[in-house]
Amino acid sequence: MQPNKVPVGVLGATGIVGQRFLQMLERHPWFEVAWLAASERSEGRAYAEAVRWRLKTPIPSRAAALPVSSANPDGAPKIIFAALDASIAAELEPRFAAAGHAVISNSSALRMQRDVPLVIPEVNAEHLKVLECQSWRRQSGGFVVTNPNCSAIGLVLALAPLEQHFGLEKVMAVTMQAVSGAGYPGVASLDILGNVIPYIAKEEEKMEEETRKLLGQVRDGHIELAGFAMSAQCNRVAVEDGHTESVSVKLKKKAGGEEIIEAWQQFRAVPQELRLPSAPERPVEYLPSSDRPQPRFDVDRGAGMTACVGRLRPCGVLEWKFTVISHNTIRGAAGAALLNAELLKAQGYLD
Amino acid sequence: MQPNKVPVGVLGATGIVGQRFLQMLERHPWFEVAWLAASERSEGRAYAEAVRWRLKTPIPSRAAALPVSSANPDGAPKIIFAALDASIAAELEPRFAAAGHAVISNSSALRMQRDVPLVIPEVNAEHLKVLECQSWRRQSGGFVVTNPNCSAIGLVLALAPLEQHFGLEKVMAVTMQAVSGAGYPGVASLDILGNVIPYIAKEEEKMEEETRKLLGQVRDGHIELAGFAMSAQCNRVAVEDGHTESVSVKLKKKAGGEEIIEAWQQFRAVPQELRLPSAPERPVEYLPSSDRPQPRFDVDRGAGMTACVGRLRPCGVLEWKFTVISHNTIRGAAGAALLNAELLKAQGYLD
Amino acid sequence: MQPNKVPVGVLGATGIVGQRFLQMLERHPWFEVAWLAASERSEGRAYAEAVRWRLKTPIPSRAAALPVSSANPDGAPKIIFAALDASIAAELEPRFAAAGHAVISNSSALRMQRDVPLVIPEVNAEHLKVLECQSWRRQSGGFVVTNPNCSAIGLVLALAPLEQHFGLEKVMAVTMQAVSGAGYPGVASLDILGNVIPYIAKEEEKMEEETRKLLGQVRDGHIELAGFAMSAQCNRVAVEDGHTESVSVKLKKKAGGEEIIEAWQQFRAVPQELRLPSAPERPVEYLPSSDRPQPRFDVDRGAGMTACVGRLRPCGVLEWKFTVISHNTIRGAAGAALLNAELLKAQGYLD
Amino acid sequence: MQPNKVPVGVLGATGIVGQRFLQMLERHPWFEVAWLAASERSEGRAYAEAVRWRLKTPIPSRAAALPVSSANPDGAPKIIFAALDASIAAELEPRFAAAGHAVISNSSALRMQRDVPLVIPEVNAEHLKVLECQSWRRQSGGFVVTNPNCSAIGLVLALAPLEQHFGLEKVMAVTMQAVSGAGYPGVASLDILGNVIPYIAKEEEKMEEETRKLLGQVRDGHIELAGFAMSAQCNRVAVEDGHTESVSVKLKKKAGGEEIIEAWQQFRAVPQELRLPSAPERPVEYLPSSDRPQPRFDVDRGAGMTACVGRLRPCGVLEWKFTVISHNTIRGAAGAALLNAELLKAQGYLD
Repeated sequence: MQPNKVPVGVLGATGIVGQRFLQMLERHPWFEVAWLAASERSEGRAYAEAVRWRLKTPIPSRAAALPVSSANPDGAPKIIFAALDASIAAELEPRFAAAGHAVISNSSALRMQRDVPLVIPEVNAEHLKVLECQSWRRQSGGFVVTNPNCSAIGLVLALAPLEQHFGLEKVMAVTMQAVSGAGYPGVASLDILGNVIPYIAKEEEKMEEETRKLLGQVRDGHIELAGFAMSAQCNRVAVEDGHTESVSVKLKKKAGGEEIIEAWQQFRAVPQELRLPSAPERPVEYLPSSDRPQPRFDVDRGAGMTACVGRLRPCGVLEWKFTVISHNTIRGAAGAALLNAELLKAQGYLD
Repeated sequence: MQPNKVPVGVLGATGIVGQRFLQMLERHPWFEVAWLAASERSEGRAYAEAVRWRLKTPIPSRAAALPVSSANPDGAPKIIFAALDASIAAELEPRFAAAGHAVISNSSALRMQRDVPLVIPEVNAEHLKVLECQSWRRQSGGFVVTNPNCSAIGLVLALAPLEQHFGLEKVMAVTMQAVSGAGYPGVASLDILGNVIPYIAKEEEKMEEETRKLLGQVRDGHIELAGFAMSAQCNRVAVEDGHTESVSVKLKKKAGGEEIIEAWQQFRAVPQELRLPSAPERPVEYLPSSDRPQPRFDVDRGAGMTACVGRLRPCGVLEWKFTVISHNTIRGAAGAALLNAELLKAQGYLD
Repeated sequence: MQPNKVPVGVLGATGIVGQRFLQMLERHPWFEVAWLAASERSEGRAYAEAVRWRLKTPIPSRAAALPVSSANPDGAPKIIFAALDASIAAELEPRFAAAGHAVISNSSALRMQRDVPLVIPEVNAEHLKVLECQSWRRQSGGFVVTNPNCSAIGLVLALAPLEQHFGLEKVMAVTMQAVSGAGYPGVASLDILGNVIPYIAKEEEKMEEETRKLLGQVRDGHIELAGFAMSAQCNRVAVEDGHTESVSVKLKKKAGGEEIIEAWQQFRAVPQELRLPSAPERPVEYLPSSDRPQPRFDVDRGAGMTACVGRLRPCGVLEWKFTVISHNTIRGAAGAALLNAELLKAQGYLD
Repeated sequence: MQPNKVPVGVLGATGIVGQRFLQMLERHPWFEVAWLAASERSEGRAYAEAVRWRLKTPIPSRAAALPVSSANPDGAPKIIFAALDASIAAELEPRFAAAGHAVISNSSALRMQRDVPLVIPEVNAEHLKVLECQSWRRQSGGFVVTNPNCSAIGLVLALAPLEQHFGLEKVMAVTMQAVSGAGYPGVASLDILGNVIPYIAKEEEKMEEETRKLLGQVRDGHIELAGFAMSAQCNRVAVEDGHTESVSVKLKKKAGGEEIIEAWQQFRAVPQELRLPSAPERPVEYLPSSDRPQPRFDVDRGAGMTACVGRLRPCGVLEWKFTVISHNTIRGAAGAALLNAELLKAQGYLD
């Protein structure tokens, strides 16, 4: 351990998002992976042997040598990044929080629970206030903070400046989502080669409710969902990384195209002001080319933390339509949680 | 020539849609290809040598041996199927019509022209009446009839029963279109492998205006566009054949989900009544599985002439949302024109 | 049951090869599916509910309604098509054979067993003689006949005419195999999109030994492996159906290119003479185009039962090199077993 | 211009390889792009407007603003990187060399010319001696140095240590090549989605003759081709970047598997000794996993300059077989030429 770094643990370290956590934490200036856990069959093995590593960079050497621990709070560091399937998270995350751990979760299990903050630091950092009412925090000092679904994050980053400047009345989003969003092995090649799958279980519900929670307001210690109408349609396509979304919106206040683009380009928020290590210089970037953004070429902007927007044009049914893409396992999962952890640390929640 | 068949010609016979024409006409009970034309550099060569055949069935042997003619009305049969790029169609189609030919066109060049019928036989067979006012027809007996863009046809087949039963107020469609829609060589593999391209030139405009013309009414010898609001967003994906569309609608009259599905399942129209040779038994088929329709598995239903619909569910912004797919080079191009020709013949326009 | 048809059963009916069996048997003139079995968790459900159907044609309606039986000889028809994983086949196939069933197997479990015929009807129909020494046959009347691995069949169809006419001395084959060869879910999309996997477990060993058994001779009631040197390298590529192989050979007798092509084009054998229902008119077809065969365009020739060969040219290390493709789940699996069954029936083994 | 850098020009700057040149030169410690040329229709426009940029990193800002010059020696820098189609290179490269320029070419046009060095710096740096006999060099001081075809480079990097330690007697290679090797637009998506194309024009001939020239010896001022037997079969697959090759070899001297792996792992050569800026630490890396190397995961090792080898195992026909992959537009094209330029500079040829 480097003396100046805070030890962290990773729950669900062998999955695709767990791998991204290790990759992103490899050279992190504040945190260092000191512990990792996965399913029982991996326990006790060295991480490098337990994992089927699916990223293009090599396994971080420090993590490679760590033994896979049992998914148990005993002996785990205080700060835990969790990349678990929802059914397992529903059981384990409360257990770690109750034992005094700060659980920074990518799972959907607790996202919509009333006293659990669902946070994108650029969008609703102030929702962390809800932690004060969270029962675990009051009892053990532990807590759970979550980030949204991979398909909601890019959308909400694009919507936040519009909500701030003009107010949102209606939002429709149709997604074309990458296969890495389903984990590994995830989507079978026989299902997706030369195909589109117009269905992802529970994804539309998550997008619709999470979007409204993220853009909601803190009232009396809990989050009041935003009131705009919202509809999502989710499709899977043969792309490795990067969710593309075709979006239409109706704003409360009339806005011209240049004003909207200006709102995106000028958008900066708490993570940029605090210069959090994983914060991109620009959370949203508008690309002027007529055929961008595209996942293959734009997914890695801002080291995968920038949502790229393009093709703003009038919509004949609502008011404006545009395309947004974002990296589903970086900005949409591991990077999202990491930025939450950085925000929590900067605001003293991890002391 | 078989004595009981009507000779037809194909303009643009070497392109992807031209190839589909030859494939679909190979064993057609009424028509027989007697003449074909392509670009100048192919002239005089045997078709089999001039074409880069991209379909899975072999080149029809009759067509293979035909010489590629000059794209000139002299010596061409009276009935001409045209599969030309818009810029060339704008010049050649009027020339053939003025010379007395029945031009059954898949091109966008003349589709929106006031006196040119834009027809899907199941949807608006009665629009053929407009031909009576078409100047070519009055002067030379020739005429031009068009079919819609490949992305509009599947959508409009799904919309037509809704318009009939409940009336349409608003329509939003986001497409995920196959690469064959761009012809050959068309989309470069470096552009689409592992990618989504959120832009197809002029496609959204075509979808929006053609949909309203198709569902419009004949008034005083021309077509009055339908009045509903319409918005399209068009994307290209790594699929060979089959356009997938995520659609939301608001209806004029309240309708339950079962009524809507019933409207689709019961939908039959002129081509089915007339038993036109290329008419599918069911122009629209609703698939009850939660993850269908999918282009890879459903594109060939009804020999590629059936639009498959699925996933009907309430929409939080409009009223209902669903997915539709259709075969873009069969129902969306060559099969569309062929069915138009069959309708024209059945109604005496080709005598 | 149609009175003139022989009832058959399918073991492993829900897998990809099991599905192909049902598809190919749907309108078979001799056989009719009367029984099917799969894993325990499917038992008792209707087939249509137990299967995740992955073929483009609909589930055959007769099979759809059949209940999934327990994988047990009691009550099963005498003739059993088996599409089981090797480890399960090793246990179940002997059990069915011992109980008097004719097991026509696609599994690798028993292929190399000395008294089990490994047969491609066009290549080594006479190997069925080995059945006379098979212990199950002598005891219960039951027996096991196998077909080769999907990667060996196309190769051996191309090699057989060369062996007949010129003799084989050395054979090298490098495969580019379709994902359907790994079953369903099989290859994860994250493993194969935009990728080549240069490894398929045990595949090279199977190709090398099966090729020599197929082209071997019956001596004293068992098969003597052919003596030529053989080397295989197996790769997985992002293709749905159709294995492509780059092959080099050294022949015993000098042969010119035209003689070799003539040997392929003239190749006809027992199944063609007996006019077996699934026998293609041409087991091997040479395609003269410089860039064929290609899986996407040529895999369905002869209803998926023809191996397509092309690009014959001199090899600087051995003597000749060429490309061969064949359909891995039709000619390479279900169609292979079906043709074996037809051969067995025609030769009285199923009476 | 930075005062300490040498100005260079790029011929064919808008193609895929030209783009790689600009990307790799963006932060090069020795060279700086001062001039670029492309086809006539691009002349005079800013590079950013003339190019259809297909790389994932943005257009280098310096290059973006450069005007596209006419492909003419007047005003061009002394050092020219050439990324031209063979037919154009055949005309332009001699013209630039005759005018006194050092032409570092990626084209096939002059590669096999007797007095033109074909160089991989790790393999045959000493072949540069041939320059002394090159007529252009003697007349104008200009010269042409070439690098091999993208499919030959990875192979030859893997073969060179074997030739050094054990001697080569026979080499067979079957390639599975990425679409970027065909340039842009290059391979049509309709040709390659779900497909393998078993043919690349002139590729096999290039691989066979270039491999022998690269591993040949300088004798009397020219290159004597190496004497081993060589056979190549070339296929195109749906991969973006990275050529995969299945290789078999027969060595002159018996070698064990560990010795061979050791030869690859220990392989270092002139570029590593001279610490050339683009030289990878390891020109060849052996990956021990049973299913590696794979283009999607291994293509970027050594910043795209390392050839990855794996799966060494005995071959039943020759002696050993293995898989090699390398990045076709970095190590196989732009990076190859750049490393040649660095070698030339380090050895005083560019002074």
